[in-house]
Amino acid sequence: MTLDRTDPEGAIAAAAAKYSNWGRWGDGDVLGTVNFIDEAKRREGAALVRQGVSFSLSQRFGIDGPQKGWRRRTNPVHTMLDTGTDAALGIQGFPHGFSGADDVIAMPLQCSTQWDGLGHIFDRGKAWNGRPAERVVTSEGDLVTGIEHMAGPVAGRGVLLDVGRVRGEDGELPDGFAITEEHLRAAIDAHGVAVGRGDIVCVRTGQLARARRDGWGDYAGGPAPGLSFTAAGWLHRTEIAAIATDTWGFEVRPNEFDDAFQPLHQVVIPNMGLLVGELWDLDALAAHCAADGVHEFWLTAGPIPVTGAVGAPVNPIAVK
Amino acid sequence: MTLDRTDPEGAIAAAAAKYSNWGRWGDGDVLGTVNFIDEAKRREGAALVRQGVSFSLSQRFGIDGPQKGWRRRTNPVHTMLDTGTDAALGIQGFPHGFSGADDVIAMPLQCSTQWDGLGHIFDRGKAWNGRPAERVVTSEGDLVTGIEHMAGPVAGRGVLLDVGRVRGEDGELPDGFAITEEHLRAAIDAHGVAVGRGDIVCVRTGQLARARRDGWGDYAGGPAPGLSFTAAGWLHRTEIAAIATDTWGFEVRPNEFDDAFQPLHQVVIPNMGLLVGELWDLDALAAHCAADGVHEFWLTAGPIPVTGAVGAPVNPIAVK
Amino acid sequence: MTLDRTDPEGAIAAAAAKYSNWGRWGDGDVLGTVNFIDEAKRREGAALVRQGVSFSLSQRFGIDGPQKGWRRRTNPVHTMLDTGTDAALGIQGFPHGFSGADDVIAMPLQCSTQWDGLGHIFDRGKAWNGRPAERVVTSEGDLVTGIEHMAGPVAGRGVLLDVGRVRGEDGELPDGFAITEEHLRAAIDAHGVAVGRGDIVCVRTGQLARARRDGWGDYAGGPAPGLSFTAAGWLHRTEIAAIATDTWGFEVRPNEFDDAFQPLHQVVIPNMGLLVGELWDLDALAAHCAADGVHEFWLTAGPIPVTGAVGAPVNPIAVK
Amino acid sequence: MTLDRTDPEGAIAAAAAKYSNWGRWGDGDVLGTVNFIDEAKRREGAALVRQGVSFSLSQRFGIDGPQKGWRRRTNPVHTMLDTGTDAALGIQGFPHGFSGADDVIAMPLQCSTQWDGLGHIFDRGKAWNGRPAERVVTSEGDLVTGIEHMAGPVAGRGVLLDVGRVRGEDGELPDGFAITEEHLRAAIDAHGVAVGRGDIVCVRTGQLARARRDGWGDYAGGPAPGLSFTAAGWLHRTEIAAIATDTWGFEVRPNEFDDAFQPLHQVVIPNMGLLVGELWDLDALAAHCAADGVHEFWLTAGPIPVTGAVGAPVNPIAVK
Repeated sequence: MTLDRTDPEGAIAAAAAKYSNWGRWGDGDVLGTVNFIDEAKRREGAALVRQGVSFSLSQRFGIDGPQKGWRRRTNPVHTMLDTGTDAALGIQGFPHGFSGADDVIAMPLQCSTQWDGLGHIFDRGKAWNGRPAERVVTSEGDLVTGIEHMAGPVAGRGVLLDVGRVRGEDGELPDGFAITEEHLRAAIDAHGVAVGRGDIVCVRTGQLARARRDGWGDYAGGPAPGLSFTAAGWLHRTEIAAIATDTWGFEVRPNEFDDAFQPLHQVVIPNMGLLVGELWDLDALAAHCAADGVHEFWLTAGPIPVTGAVGAPVNPIAVK
Repeated sequence: MTLDRTDPEGAIAAAAAKYSNWGRWGDGDVLGTVNFIDEAKRREGAALVRQGVSFSLSQRFGIDGPQKGWRRRTNPVHTMLDTGTDAALGIQGFPHGFSGADDVIAMPLQCSTQWDGLGHIFDRGKAWNGRPAERVVTSEGDLVTGIEHMAGPVAGRGVLLDVGRVRGEDGELPDGFAITEEHLRAAIDAHGVAVGRGDIVCVRTGQLARARRDGWGDYAGGPAPGLSFTAAGWLHRTEIAAIATDTWGFEVRPNEFDDAFQPLHQVVIPNMGLLVGELWDLDALAAHCAADGVHEFWLTAGPIPVTGAVGAPVNPIAVK
Repeated sequence: MTLDRTDPEGAIAAAAAKYSNWGRWGDGDVLGTVNFIDEAKRREGAALVRQGVSFSLSQRFGIDGPQKGWRRRTNPVHTMLDTGTDAALGIQGFPHGFSGADDVIAMPLQCSTQWDGLGHIFDRGKAWNGRPAERVVTSEGDLVTGIEHMAGPVAGRGVLLDVGRVRGEDGELPDGFAITEEHLRAAIDAHGVAVGRGDIVCVRTGQLARARRDGWGDYAGGPAPGLSFTAAGWLHRTEIAAIATDTWGFEVRPNEFDDAFQPLHQVVIPNMGLLVGELWDLDALAAHCAADGVHEFWLTAGPIPVTGAVGAPVNPIAVK
Repeated sequence: MTLDRTDPEGAIAAAAAKYSNWGRWGDGDVLGTVNFIDEAKRREGAALVRQGVSFSLSQRFGIDGPQKGWRRRTNPVHTMLDTGTDAALGIQGFPHGFSGADDVIAMPLQCSTQWDGLGHIFDRGKAWNGRPAERVVTSEGDLVTGIEHMAGPVAGRGVLLDVGRVRGEDGELPDGFAITEEHLRAAIDAHGVAVGRGDIVCVRTGQLARARRDGWGDYAGGPAPGLSFTAAGWLHRTEIAAIATDTWGFEVRPNEFDDAFQPLHQVVIPNMGLLVGELWDLDALAAHCAADGVHEFWLTAGPIPVTGAVGAPVNPIAVK
């Protein structure tokens, strides 16, 4: 597939039409491709626990995170309501030697490891399943496809495609590297793993390792490796349930059109109903997979069910 | 065990001494009883996935939650940075028909379904493992046992003890009902399930069902069923990894001493190093367990790893 | 003026037409009736400083404020980034004996003493000066009449109309008491003070004194004394620059129609362009005015200029 | 006065002893040098209103402000609870054509134009008036000298010392420029204005104009002009009530010792009890003063009374 860099509208319209899942799970659907995860898939996933080792795929949520204020996205501001230093001074007023600490947080829901909800992106005014955007997400939040609907079902078979290790240098793809279907297939072949209906696919680019070493710069959404727009067909055809990367934006940055903003999102979220994860930390899991050659695992990744949210923090747990 | 209602200090000091795990896992330990979860336990847990049905045990995070402002604990305030109503009017300024929604949240970390971190409670100035409270939790958060350390390991075998169904009326224990070791054993017997080292025990009281029906009242920490102070020995002896309830405070409210505040917390968190969960939603899982008679399951419950937090939201996923 | 309690639409439409100031200060106007404050008015106001005594008319901003969560309006959550208890332990890491405290806040902009911005209320889809609501206030805030425009000009002559003292018992009007033009005139006469173009009028009902004594109840917007819908003509005719009360909602609660929500707001903010203040604390000032019989004063009341806000905290300073 | 750059401890100890006001206004004092503002001073200030022109000296509070995350200080995050775009779609559910917009904010209290409270800085463990820091500011805030005490009295005579115009190029002092007593006197002479007991002194460096033009860089507390440590004597001797600058940190940055952090703060806040303002916007006022040659004015600058805050936003209003 060759992209005409000057015509994102045409490419998006064509891909949206070709890869649409509107109506596939009924008019009232709120789960999109997560519908592909069935009970058999969960049994298949659980059976992958051979060793019993678990990995959190979540970055930490802290003030030293990747955000720099773009579109009001800051890093989490975590503050204490009560502390041990207060407690040590005996000023908390509780009886019998009791004292404690407590805390609050203020943060964008997509500041760190997260799932994009189905109401996060619209294509020409339409949200997932063809609903008018304005009927879905108001100031009160996503009234239809809020992230709370994803709280339960996202548990099944996970597959790691470590494109960074397979195609990169020292395990890292360079910024601007567009991961195509060919690269995904090469990783599948290299790992000797299958990908299919209902799987949750984790694509490691290695950018997070680089950002940890060199910093995130002024804008976490700057140049980065990521999925090519041309991978939309693969994402649709494989009938995967979800995909997540270790980058800010899932798709390659800068995008592959001259004047564009996240065109692959525009196809896969509102049209395909695909659950997309970003800013996942795949490094420890990837090291383990590289060592034992097993790239599939049991994965539970239900988001915190913030009512009406269009995205939410998640602590994905992979167990091998 | 009979409690002298006038002497919480004595009872706490005795229980703290008797049930202490200080030093058990070395001086640098940050996991407490979560150390009881080993790889074998995770394999055992995964083997419990027979059907493939999954349950989120998280309440929703929304403005209609249980908090009323006590000690600055409000319900989550979720607001939108971008909306579909804006998008519909074409005012977001993105190219090629792209538009989106985004959001932020401000909330206490223990406003809804959560784990208490090991730095949440101190006993006579000491935090978990005997550390001085003021060396553990400052205004910058928990510098030693922050909840981020719990992100990965909390995955294993879950057991539901539905004391509400076994001992209550219509599945609900009355407020003020103290769940003793005897009640826990009765549930274990009734369910025909074993509880032991490394298990994550979910105790359902039924209060959440009542709160859903009747409201939380002026204070979510008001009268409620919960664990008896006298259950500390059982919690220690069984070597469970964690315990969670469907109530605000895990232990019975009002507490079982004349002038007291959460005395069981004071024993089990800083002394025993027990991971305690609160405000879990066990109702759907419990209905399923009641129907098929199986009260054990796979449970993943890693908290959102907020750096230095003394508690954090969690979306526990049970799979049977 | 007699109100037909069954026809708020008719009454609002009639009042909106009769008392509209649209276009009065040009198409680009962002100040509404604040335009009535001119330099002469400020000189007149400053000349009222005879004694040099100053009063803050702001309630405190704290967790014990009037909010209970209605429409996501909580009380302010004020938390510390650094504390003296930390400092005392010498753990802040600064040189030469320096240490400090710092803090953050999360709050609704109208949680306590505040001005309503001109973008706060719309009448049948129109904002102040006839602008379509959707062109004025998006998810990015009020793009046209943001409260920041009010930062400088709101300084001039203040007048206190202590209707609570003039008509109430023990200085308090009962809840549901509708303050009509007649009551306002009676207060003017009783105080021997004039009210006219460019004045900032503070109407004391006494409800705040009652709320301080008895609590705010479950909803700060419950029954309260306040301006009658019928006072709209007086508000327009007098050409006052602004009006503020010691109540949550400025107008009488419950409102004077069978099925209504803040109908006087709907007339005076979008149509008249009137600056409306709420939850002011007029008690100390009122006691002073009652004692010396002088009900006019210098008043500075510029809001905190939050860019694009539709309301903002203000600490109004009255000096006599 | 010559500074030994290697001995901040010695210099601070000497200045603290020499310029202490501890006990000057009694043991229970919570106002410090604001005590110098008396009723006569307010009458003097009000008499300076000759023309009736008013200036807000507040920067806007928005996401484009000077903060970059240092010590969890972000810019304000202002979000909408209700919008005009929602209203235009008729989805808010209010009767009779009523609709509205509402908003919330999360921000550090010292993110933009603010006063430092007396509990903001400690000297060797002591807060203002010699109180132990840990008895003043806990996790619950400043229990003694909270900024709410400053809400009423800060109204009086303001004086602008435009050192930027008097000594800088194009009205701007270079970064690192230390403003000494000599420079302050030169400005006083150039302006032909007196400074004395109870005055509120605004020192313009011109840095804000530069930051507006060139950006704030990665850290708002980076190199900047500001008061010299050696100006402490002048600040004490003149008995001014307060001082404010158009910079992040009031004193010169980098500080004048080899290893130091805000040594002048350490002297003037806890020891002198001086009210210090930062990030004020003096540019419009300064242009007016330069034009008419009058550098004194009526100034009201009461902070938003956040209970227990160690600093707070203020919208200072100067009227000439």
